[in-house]
Amino acid sequence: MILVRQEIGDVLRDLRLQKGRTLRQVASRASVALGYLSEVERGQKEASSEILAAVAEALDVPISNIMREVGDRISVLEGLPVISDVVPDDIAGLDPDLVAPELSLR
Amino acid sequence: MILVRQEIGDVLRDLRLQKGRTLRQVASRASVALGYLSEVERGQKEASSEILAAVAEALDVPISNIMREVGDRISVLEGLPVISDVVPDDIAGLDPDLVAPELSLR
Repeated sequence: MILVRQEIGDVLRDLRLQKGRTLRQVASRASVALGYLSEVERGQKEASSEILAAVAEALDVPISNIMREVGDRISVLEGLPVISDVVPDDIAGLDPDLVAPELSLR
Repeated sequence: MILVRQEIGDVLRDLRLQKGRTLRQVASRASVALGYLSEVERGQKEASSEILAAVAEALDVPISNIMREVGDRISVLEGLPVISDVVPDDIAGLDPDLVAPELSLR
Protein backbone atom coordinates (compact mmCIF):
# COMPACT_ATOMS: atom_id res chain seq x y z
CA MET A 1 0.00 0.00 0.00
CA ILE A 2 1.31 3.44 -0.91
CA LEU A 3 1.39 5.68 2.17
CA VAL A 4 1.19 9.42 1.61
CA ARG A 5 2.95 10.13 4.93
CA GLN A 6 6.03 8.23 3.73
CA GLU A 7 6.31 10.43 0.64
CA ILE A 8 5.57 13.62 2.58
CA GLY A 9 8.33 12.67 5.03
CA ASP A 10 10.81 12.00 2.23
CA VAL A 11 9.99 15.28 0.49
CA LEU A 12 10.30 17.30 3.71
CA ARG A 13 13.65 15.72 4.53
CA ASP A 14 14.97 16.20 0.98
CA LEU A 15 13.92 19.86 0.99
CA ARG A 16 15.52 20.42 4.38
CA LEU A 17 18.80 18.84 3.28
CA GLN A 18 18.74 20.79 0.00
CA LYS A 19 18.58 23.96 2.08
CA GLY A 20 21.34 22.77 4.39
CA ARG A 21 19.26 23.01 7.53
CA THR A 22 19.26 20.77 10.56
CA LEU A 23 16.23 19.06 12.06
CA ARG A 24 16.75 21.27 15.11
CA GLN A 25 16.66 24.50 13.09
CA VAL A 26 13.49 23.59 11.20
CA ALA A 27 11.73 22.21 14.27
CA SER A 28 12.55 25.34 16.22
CA ARG A 29 11.42 27.71 13.47
CA ALA A 30 8.20 25.72 12.94
CA SER A 31 7.60 25.45 16.70
CA VAL A 32 7.25 21.67 16.57
CA ALA A 33 9.05 19.14 18.75
CA LEU A 34 12.28 17.86 17.22
CA GLY A 35 11.34 14.22 17.86
CA TYR A 36 7.97 14.70 16.22
CA LEU A 37 9.46 16.29 13.09
CA SER A 38 11.97 13.45 12.93
CA GLU A 39 9.15 10.90 13.02
CA VAL A 40 7.25 12.80 10.33
CA GLU A 41 10.35 12.82 8.11
CA ARG A 42 10.72 9.06 8.57
CA GLY A 43 7.07 8.50 7.64
CA GLN A 44 6.23 7.19 11.10
CA LYS A 45 3.79 9.93 12.07
CA GLU A 46 1.05 11.69 10.12
CA ALA A 47 1.66 15.44 10.04
CA SER A 48 -1.47 17.46 10.76
CA SER A 49 -2.33 20.18 8.25
CA GLU A 50 -1.24 22.81 10.77
CA ILE A 51 2.16 21.15 11.26
CA LEU A 52 2.61 20.80 7.50
CA ALA A 53 1.89 24.50 7.01
CA ALA A 54 4.33 25.45 9.79
CA VAL A 55 7.11 23.22 8.46
CA ALA A 56 6.59 24.44 4.88
CA GLU A 57 6.87 28.02 6.10
CA ALA A 58 9.97 27.14 8.14
CA LEU A 59 11.51 25.68 4.98
CA ASP A 60 10.46 28.70 2.88
CA VAL A 61 8.67 26.38 0.47
CA PRO A 62 5.04 26.77 -0.68
CA ILE A 63 2.84 23.87 0.48
CA SER A 64 1.70 23.48 -3.13
CA ASN A 65 5.26 22.59 -4.18
CA ILE A 66 5.42 19.95 -1.47
CA MET A 67 2.09 18.38 -2.43
CA ARG A 68 2.92 18.37 -6.14
CA GLU A 69 6.26 16.73 -5.47
CA VAL A 70 4.48 14.15 -3.30
CA GLY A 71 2.02 13.53 -6.16
CA ASP A 72 4.87 13.12 -8.66
CA ARG A 73 6.71 10.62 -6.47
CA ILE A 74 3.57 8.59 -5.78
CA SER A 75 2.88 8.55 -9.50
CA VAL A 76 6.20 6.77 -10.03
CA LEU A 77 5.35 4.30 -7.25
CA GLU A 78 1.96 3.67 -8.84
CA GLY A 79 3.68 2.88 -12.11
CA LEU A 80 1.71 5.39 -14.13
CA PRO A 81 4.02 6.23 -17.01
CA VAL A 82 2.54 8.54 -19.65
CA ILE A 83 3.35 6.00 -22.36
CA SER A 84 0.78 3.56 -21.00
CA ASP A 85 -1.97 6.04 -21.87
CA VAL A 86 -0.86 6.10 -25.49
CA VAL A 87 0.49 2.75 -26.58
CA PRO A 88 -0.51 -0.52 -24.87
CA ASP A 89 2.53 -2.30 -23.46
CA ASP A 90 2.06 -5.38 -25.66
CA ILE A 91 1.97 -3.24 -28.81
CA ALA A 92 4.93 -1.13 -27.73
CA GLY A 93 6.87 -4.30 -27.01
CA LEU A 94 7.59 -3.28 -23.44
CA ASP A 95 7.70 -5.58 -20.48
CA PRO A 96 4.81 -4.44 -18.24
CA ASP A 97 6.77 -5.51 -15.17
CA LEU A 98 9.45 -3.00 -16.08
CA VAL A 99 7.09 -0.20 -17.09
CA ALA A 100 4.62 -0.49 -14.22
CA PRO A 101 6.15 -2.28 -11.25
CA GLU A 102 3.18 -1.61 -8.93
CA LEU A 103 -0.25 -2.20 -10.40
CA SER A 104 -2.28 -2.93 -7.31
CA LEU A 105 -3.95 0.49 -7.24
CA ARG A 106 -4.76 0.83 -10.95
CA MET B 1 -3.44 29.43 7.03
CA ILE B 2 -3.85 27.00 4.14
CA LEU B 3 -4.96 23.60 5.43
CA VAL B 4 -4.13 20.57 3.31
CA ARG B 5 -7.03 18.56 4.81
CA GLN B 6 -9.52 21.14 3.49
CA GLU B 7 -8.22 20.72 -0.06
CA ILE B 8 -8.01 16.93 0.25
CA GLY B 9 -11.63 16.90 1.41
CA ASP B 10 -12.76 19.09 -1.47
CA VAL B 11 -10.93 16.96 -4.03
CA LEU B 12 -12.33 13.69 -2.62
CA ARG B 13 -15.87 15.07 -2.65
CA ASP B 14 -15.51 16.48 -6.17
CA LEU B 15 -14.16 13.16 -7.47
CA ARG B 16 -16.97 11.23 -5.77
CA LEU B 17 -19.64 13.52 -7.26
CA GLN B 18 -17.99 13.35 -10.70
CA LYS B 19 -18.37 9.58 -10.51
CA GLY B 20 -21.96 9.83 -9.34
CA ARG B 21 -21.36 7.89 -6.14
CA THR B 22 -22.90 8.43 -2.73
CA LEU B 23 -20.99 8.87 0.51
CA ARG B 24 -22.50 5.56 1.62
CA GLN B 25 -21.21 3.70 -1.44
CA VAL B 26 -17.66 5.02 -1.14
CA ALA B 27 -17.52 4.58 2.63
CA SER B 28 -18.72 1.01 2.31
CA ARG B 29 -16.29 0.13 -0.45
CA ALA B 30 -13.39 1.73 1.44
CA SER B 31 -14.45 0.12 4.73
CA VAL B 32 -14.52 3.45 6.56
CA ALA B 33 -17.34 4.85 8.68
CA LEU B 34 -19.73 7.06 6.74
CA GLY B 35 -19.58 9.82 9.36
CA TYR B 36 -15.79 9.79 9.27
CA LEU B 37 -15.65 10.06 5.48
CA SER B 38 -18.16 12.88 5.63
CA GLU B 39 -15.95 14.76 8.10
CA VAL B 40 -12.89 14.16 5.91
CA GLU B 41 -14.73 15.55 2.89
CA ARG B 42 -15.67 18.65 4.87
CA GLY B 43 -12.06 19.17 5.95
CA GLN B 44 -12.92 18.57 9.60
CA LYS B 45 -10.79 15.44 10.07
CA GLU B 46 -7.34 14.53 8.88
CA ALA B 47 -7.43 11.36 6.80
CA SER B 48 -4.69 8.90 7.72
CA SER B 49 -2.56 7.62 4.86
CA GLU B 50 -4.29 4.24 5.11
CA ILE B 51 -7.75 5.85 4.83
CA LEU B 52 -6.61 7.98 1.90
CA ALA B 53 -5.35 4.90 0.09
CA ALA B 54 -8.60 3.03 0.75
CA VAL B 55 -10.80 5.93 -0.40
CA ALA B 56 -8.70 6.50 -3.52
CA GLU B 57 -9.05 2.82 -4.39
CA ALA B 58 -12.81 2.96 -3.70
CA LEU B 59 -13.02 5.91 -6.11
CA ASP B 60 -10.85 4.15 -8.72
CA VAL B 61 -8.48 7.13 -8.72
CA PRO B 62 -4.68 6.92 -8.28
CA ILE B 63 -3.51 8.65 -5.09
CA SER B 64 -1.02 10.57 -7.23
CA ASN B 65 -3.89 12.25 -9.10
CA ILE B 66 -5.47 13.29 -5.82
CA MET B 67 -2.24 14.75 -4.43
CA ARG B 68 -1.41 16.59 -7.64
CA GLU B 69 -4.90 18.09 -7.76
CA VAL B 70 -4.50 19.12 -4.11
CA GLY B 71 -1.16 20.74 -5.00
CA ASP B 72 -2.71 22.60 -7.92
CA ARG B 73 -5.58 23.95 -5.82
CA ILE B 74 -3.26 25.05 -3.01
CA SER B 75 -1.07 26.76 -5.59
CA VAL B 76 -4.06 28.91 -6.55
CA LEU B 77 -4.73 29.69 -2.89
CA GLU B 78 -1.08 30.62 -2.43
CA GLY B 79 -1.32 32.99 -5.35
CA LEU B 80 1.57 31.45 -7.24
CA PRO B 81 0.86 32.15 -10.91
CA VAL B 82 3.56 30.99 -13.32
CA ILE B 83 3.90 34.52 -14.67
CA SER B 84 5.39 35.76 -11.39
CA ASP B 85 8.45 33.56 -12.02
CA VAL B 86 9.04 35.20 -15.38
CA VAL B 87 7.96 38.83 -15.37
CA PRO B 88 7.73 40.91 -12.18
CA ASP B 89 4.20 42.21 -11.65
CA ASP B 90 5.26 45.85 -11.87
CA ILE B 91 6.94 45.28 -15.22
CA ALA B 92 4.02 43.23 -16.55
CA GLY B 93 1.66 46.01 -15.47
CA LEU B 94 -0.40 43.68 -13.35
CA ASP B 95 -1.97 44.54 -10.04
CA PRO B 96 -0.24 42.22 -7.51
CA ASP B 97 -3.41 42.14 -5.41
CA LEU B 98 -5.25 40.60 -8.34
CA VAL B 99 -2.49 38.22 -9.36
CA ALA B 100 -1.59 36.97 -5.89
CA PRO B 101 -4.50 37.42 -3.47
CA GLU B 102 -2.85 35.46 -0.65
CA LEU B 103 0.73 36.24 0.13
CA SER B 104 1.00 35.20 3.73
CA LEU B 105 2.93 32.01 2.97
CA ARG B 106 5.29 33.33 0.31
